[in-house]
Amino acid sequence: MIFHVVTLFPEMLDSPLRESILGRAVKQGLIAVETHNLRDWAEGKHLSCDDAPYGGGDGMVLKPEPLARAVAALKRRTPAARVLLMSPQGVPFDQQHARRLSTEEGLIFLCGRYAGFDERVRATLVDEEFSIGDFVLTGGELPALVMIDAIARYLPGVLGSADSVTSDSFTDGLLEYPQYTRPPVFNDVAVPDVLLSGDHRRINAWRREQQLLRTLQRRPDLLEKADLSADDRRILEGLRGETDRLFTQRSNN
Amino acid sequence: MIFHVVTLFPEMLDSPLRESILGRAVKQGLIAVETHNLRDWAEGKHLSCDDAPYGGGDGMVLKPEPLARAVAALKRRTPAARVLLMSPQGVPFDQQHARRLSTEEGLIFLCGRYAGFDERVRATLVDEEFSIGDFVLTGGELPALVMIDAIARYLPGVLGSADSVTSDSFTDGLLEYPQYTRPPVFNDVAVPDVLLSGDHRRINAWRREQQLLRTLQRRPDLLEKADLSADDRRILEGLRGETDRLFTQRSNN
Repeated sequence: MIFHVVTLFPEMLDSPLRESILGRAVKQGLIAVETHNLRDWAEGKHLSCDDAPYGGGDGMVLKPEPLARAVAALKRRTPAARVLLMSPQGVPFDQQHARRLSTEEGLIFLCGRYAGFDERVRATLVDEEFSIGDFVLTGGELPALVMIDAIARYLPGVLGSADSVTSDSFTDGLLEYPQYTRPPVFNDVAVPDVLLSGDHRRINAWRREQQLLRTLQRRPDLLEKADLSADDRRILEGLRGETDRLFTQRSNN
Repeated sequence: MIFHVVTLFPEMLDSPLRESILGRAVKQGLIAVETHNLRDWAEGKHLSCDDAPYGGGDGMVLKPEPLARAVAALKRRTPAARVLLMSPQGVPFDQQHARRLSTEEGLIFLCGRYAGFDERVRATLVDEEFSIGDFVLTGGELPALVMIDAIARYLPGVLGSADSVTSDSFTDGLLEYPQYTRPPVFNDVAVPDVLLSGDHRRINAWRREQQLLRTLQRRPDLLEKADLSADDRRILEGLRGETDRLFTQRSNN
């Protein structure tokens, strides 16, 4: 799979692409990531890629033509590539998108800067528009890196253990269960007995309950679209009952 | 303001911290970002920072002691620093968090790897736990960079124009309005007439309506907590009416 990143700051991506699991995947030829300087497709004596917004206002807007030329050139290289716009106005990127996009042959990420893109980039050049969250960044480079990382993890051989991606948070729509390692007691907190029992059936049941409890407490919004079994739903009913009872007791005191 | 980042891959952060607006802020001394190798606080002959999970399972869990030593050492350097855990189980980071955290003296980011942190790190060492979205990454380094970028933008002098941070998406809880720059026509799409009118009252009214329309169409969830005036609510009523009418017409055909 090939990832093309179009940006005004290609050097910004160097070290994250060189280090860690992403760097190893690149070295092993499991993925290719090419960074492209948008300015290479600019014209005129100043090679400018941005211009003042019509109607006034702060900041500069990325012009449509250099981006159009970049997309055309990269599609000649990777004809089936999907064009993705990194923008705070996009669809919130999630694990399901990561999985789906990992089956593409190639992706072209367009990274913004300044006051954003000319609207016609959005309307005429891109296939999908993604946001990585409800916050504002100085550019689309970090979001592109985040998406490449999340997507690459689904490609064969990228992760050390084939199982890791399926047991992570979000892959079944729930948060992960608590993990413990040595020492048995740290800062006066002991490892739960069940994890020392060696009884894998009980351990698995405890972990699933903890996943459900944690998701209920921290991100109840995730439960609506999570992949839950009949057992899960029964456990969740019980947990909800307990939480309500605790709340009622506290209100009565 | 000082940002400490504790990670097993400190080199990964090099280029994003050197380039662009973040790099300039560091060079100008507006912010300091120090990356620290967690392994410097490991003990034993292998300097290991991770261990197998109690109860079995894939992956390795970050041990609590090296992280505890890291936090203690960095708090001696920056006593008022808040300790933040980067984790998919955390509170979803947003623009309001960025603004609040920008008033801190210092922040210590703990970046995970492998199967995550020993639960007692979460329970006894950290002040807040943040997620940048519902997806899984190979580590907390990119999330820490994302948060540093979003937070640093609020610090005086970091952005070129003082106004830019307030006119961006999310600062008033809405998505941004469409931007246009030259040429007047691109890929057969023309710049909206109002933006060429020179009438700033009309332009501002159009832009606000576009913000409301775009947020209604793409992220209606944001409207519930957005900062809306009585005028905004009236416009929104109208837009909702139009959308409903369009839908009814379509259903009737």
